[in-house]
Amino acid sequence: MRFSLGEIADLVKGKFIGDEQLQITGVNSLDKAKDGDISFFYDARYSDQAEKTQASALVVSKELEYFPGSQIVVENPRLAYALLAGLFVPPVPRFNGISDRAFLHETVSTGKNVSIYPLVYAGEDAVIGDDVILFPGVFIGDRVKVGNNSVLYANVSVMQDCIIGDNVVIHSGTVIGADGFGYVPGEKGHVKIPQLGNVRIDDDVEIGANSTIDRAAHGTTHIKRGVKIDNLVQVAHNVVIGEDSIVVAQAGISGSVDVGNNVIIGGQVGIRDHVSIGDNAQVGSGSGVHKSIAEGEAALGNPTLPPRLWLKTRALIERLPEMNKKIKELEKKLSSLKKKDE
Amino acid sequence: MRFSLGEIADLVKGKFIGDEQLQITGVNSLDKAKDGDISFFYDARYSDQAEKTQASALVVSKELEYFPGSQIVVENPRLAYALLAGLFVPPVPRFNGISDRAFLHETVSTGKNVSIYPLVYAGEDAVIGDDVILFPGVFIGDRVKVGNNSVLYANVSVMQDCIIGDNVVIHSGTVIGADGFGYVPGEKGHVKIPQLGNVRIDDDVEIGANSTIDRAAHGTTHIKRGVKIDNLVQVAHNVVIGEDSIVVAQAGISGSVDVGNNVIIGGQVGIRDHVSIGDNAQVGSGSGVHKSIAEGEAALGNPTLPPRLWLKTRALIERLPEMNKKIKELEKKLSSLKKKDE
Amino acid sequence: MRFSLGEIADLVKGKFIGDEQLQITGVNSLDKAKDGDISFFYDARYSDQAEKTQASALVVSKELEYFPGSQIVVENPRLAYALLAGLFVPPVPRFNGISDRAFLHETVSTGKNVSIYPLVYAGEDAVIGDDVILFPGVFIGDRVKVGNNSVLYANVSVMQDCIIGDNVVIHSGTVIGADGFGYVPGEKGHVKIPQLGNVRIDDDVEIGANSTIDRAAHGTTHIKRGVKIDNLVQVAHNVVIGEDSIVVAQAGISGSVDVGNNVIIGGQVGIRDHVSIGDNAQVGSGSGVHKSIAEGEAALGNPTLPPRLWLKTRALIERLPEMNKKIKELEKKLSSLKKKDE
Repeated sequence: MRFSLGEIADLVKGKFIGDEQLQITGVNSLDKAKDGDISFFYDARYSDQAEKTQASALVVSKELEYFPGSQIVVENPRLAYALLAGLFVPPVPRFNGISDRAFLHETVSTGKNVSIYPLVYAGEDAVIGDDVILFPGVFIGDRVKVGNNSVLYANVSVMQDCIIGDNVVIHSGTVIGADGFGYVPGEKGHVKIPQLGNVRIDDDVEIGANSTIDRAAHGTTHIKRGVKIDNLVQVAHNVVIGEDSIVVAQAGISGSVDVGNNVIIGGQVGIRDHVSIGDNAQVGSGSGVHKSIAEGEAALGNPTLPPRLWLKTRALIERLPEMNKKIKELEKKLSSLKKKDE
Repeated sequence: MRFSLGEIADLVKGKFIGDEQLQITGVNSLDKAKDGDISFFYDARYSDQAEKTQASALVVSKELEYFPGSQIVVENPRLAYALLAGLFVPPVPRFNGISDRAFLHETVSTGKNVSIYPLVYAGEDAVIGDDVILFPGVFIGDRVKVGNNSVLYANVSVMQDCIIGDNVVIHSGTVIGADGFGYVPGEKGHVKIPQLGNVRIDDDVEIGANSTIDRAAHGTTHIKRGVKIDNLVQVAHNVVIGEDSIVVAQAGISGSVDVGNNVIIGGQVGIRDHVSIGDNAQVGSGSGVHKSIAEGEAALGNPTLPPRLWLKTRALIERLPEMNKKIKELEKKLSSLKKKDE
Repeated sequence: MRFSLGEIADLVKGKFIGDEQLQITGVNSLDKAKDGDISFFYDARYSDQAEKTQASALVVSKELEYFPGSQIVVENPRLAYALLAGLFVPPVPRFNGISDRAFLHETVSTGKNVSIYPLVYAGEDAVIGDDVILFPGVFIGDRVKVGNNSVLYANVSVMQDCIIGDNVVIHSGTVIGADGFGYVPGEKGHVKIPQLGNVRIDDDVEIGANSTIDRAAHGTTHIKRGVKIDNLVQVAHNVVIGEDSIVVAQAGISGSVDVGNNVIIGGQVGIRDHVSIGDNAQVGSGSGVHKSIAEGEAALGNPTLPPRLWLKTRALIERLPEMNKKIKELEKKLSSLKKKDE
């Protein structure tokens, strides 16, 4: 792959300094870049490396006097890096066509240019979109739809009737659409509440490895456009996660929780059932959410508190022995004062 | 499927009002029910919908004057719903017989009417009971027994010598019988303690997706009749979980823990090794259990406290800054009082 | 299998009492041992059993007067047990050779005496060492290397370019080398930071079931020699875990964390990104690590405190209602004293 510096400047919306026709063939760190590479400089700690770099061009946050090559000045170099590295990222390894060692039910419909590895299973009336890649061990249940350009890595299981959008990535071992967890105590043990709904995952969602997203009891567990979910995350039945929200590893979201757009849920967070988390809210890692969190609020701790109060209380918890001592001293002084007084 | 209202009233043990011979063909919510459906009304918030419902019959907690159709009055409508919805639930999708794309060792014994999908593996001397369904990617180790009418969903792994009872459901990605985690520090790194036992799962157990239940070091890790385990739960070696207990998602139960009958363990709970949890005990979600919990007790927090004390302490933690301020004020006042006194 | 008592005494480095030529054919508990077995006695609670045991020989922490058979006296009977039980442990069940129901790309290289079960996939230029065992459902990505004598259990996924050393054991369902979790907010949702590195797992590492170890953004996520990782553990991109460290179930280690050698990380611990944990440090189960922990330190709680301080504060948290009451009483007394004074 090669791109002109002009094309690259357009992509990252940067101010351009130098040779627009220069051909760029790779992205690399300052110390490893070689002729043809573009690199990044925006952290003063690496100025030594910037002075010696062999890169042909640099993305910078402000113009660099001493660099002899071309430069692109951008406001957000991290974003520029992500965009640019995305240009040169090696493509997902593809199997050429549909393996005859895969098992597709005769009613499965497949789009153009699919890549279906050996040891894939797809059930009755499943629909696989264009350019989809299914890795070995993927299970596609009956009537599942997988949108265009989506990638399901090894040993992913998608149970019957679930819907997956376009440009979705699901990492290995993740389970979409297992039964939600619901029982009613009966005379002879627990009676299962049938889980009759499904899971719908909208476009541009990415889900990490070994996560679980349960089907709804009725209706749909819904992961909306652009959501990013990390590894080992639990999403229970009837949860809705709004657009562009982020859920970090090992978080657990209980049944019927409503998560807004652009929310960030930290690692190992637990959220109890039926609460709602407003748009743009942020929940710090390790927190236990027992009640709803308003739009734009941040919350920390178990149970959650506003971050400032949490910080204060945490500091005071460490000083509890001291506080306790002071109380005892006060009691002593007061009682001796009282005696004197009498 | 169709059932007479009489049959249904028997099932849910309800008081019957109306036409016993009425044929019911489905269960639906009040607003979606149509002719032939039975629906449920027990929450005053939905009385608008109850007035307009097209359902042919209703399950109610007390007789509804204005409803023209048949009614069944029950004490516990949620239980009635679970029982009734179970009648009409679509059956687990089956593969017709044993796929020639599955791999069964020649010594495997299979019962009547099994459904073994493509891409299943079953090892030496495995025994598969009647009506069992094994989904694609299921691994059945040597000498494993799977009881009648059990369902193992996609990519479940059951390691050698483990025993699974009748009517057991194991959701996708779950691992039964991996080695327990035990090492002794040796001269050159850790020496593994061989894990020579197995896992036994009794009848009517359901286990969620991507959970792990380790084999015992010696003897058996034992999940007893009727236990329900959610997703991403860790059950370590030599744990015993008593009948009808419930373990919610992402809980972790350390080695040799003894859990009684009818216990409820909340989501993300951690239980340290070798403690016991008495019958009917309840551990709140997110708790860290450092010592045994007596029969019938409830416990919350990390480390756990009785719920009332936990609530009090939680409230006071939020007020620590205020308490600290009061102590400082008391110190000031007392010292000024003292000065005056002198 | 049979070993002479002399061989066994050498292995466990014990002081020998009795018949060096005695043939031992098994290891068992005191109550279950029979002729030919060796057993263990080092806990006074079992002296009743020791008196009656049918074992031919005993490993003891000091010589047992009343036992008629041979004895081996060792300093660390638990270590001796692990070593000895390891002699008699049944071998990992092997498939005989390479199954024609496995799918190996034509460029895959395999060593001597491999055991590749049906339903295994191995991609382009993968290298499988001598004596390796790959269970059904294992996915080996392109250019992956698996060292000699390693075992990958059922449904393990190892993504492209990851490197696995010798004598490594990976339990079922674990995912090695899924993409790390990194995004930058862009104009239209999150832009993925390409994850261009890999995972390297050194010799003698064991990893539990359904764990996830992400590939690095650049460079390598590195699990060093002798590390033992339990089930459902999350190891994020660019983490380094030093030699012989232990990570217990459901712990989560965030991006770029540097864990030293011989560290113990308890169950359900969460460690935030970019901190370091010094050699020989210990983090108690359930803790939340927000800042680096020095060499040899122990830490507990969320956020972590030194264990002594943590114990004190935990005790005082339970007594907060009492402390609060005392403060109120002090305020009352002081104000009545003041009034009297005026």
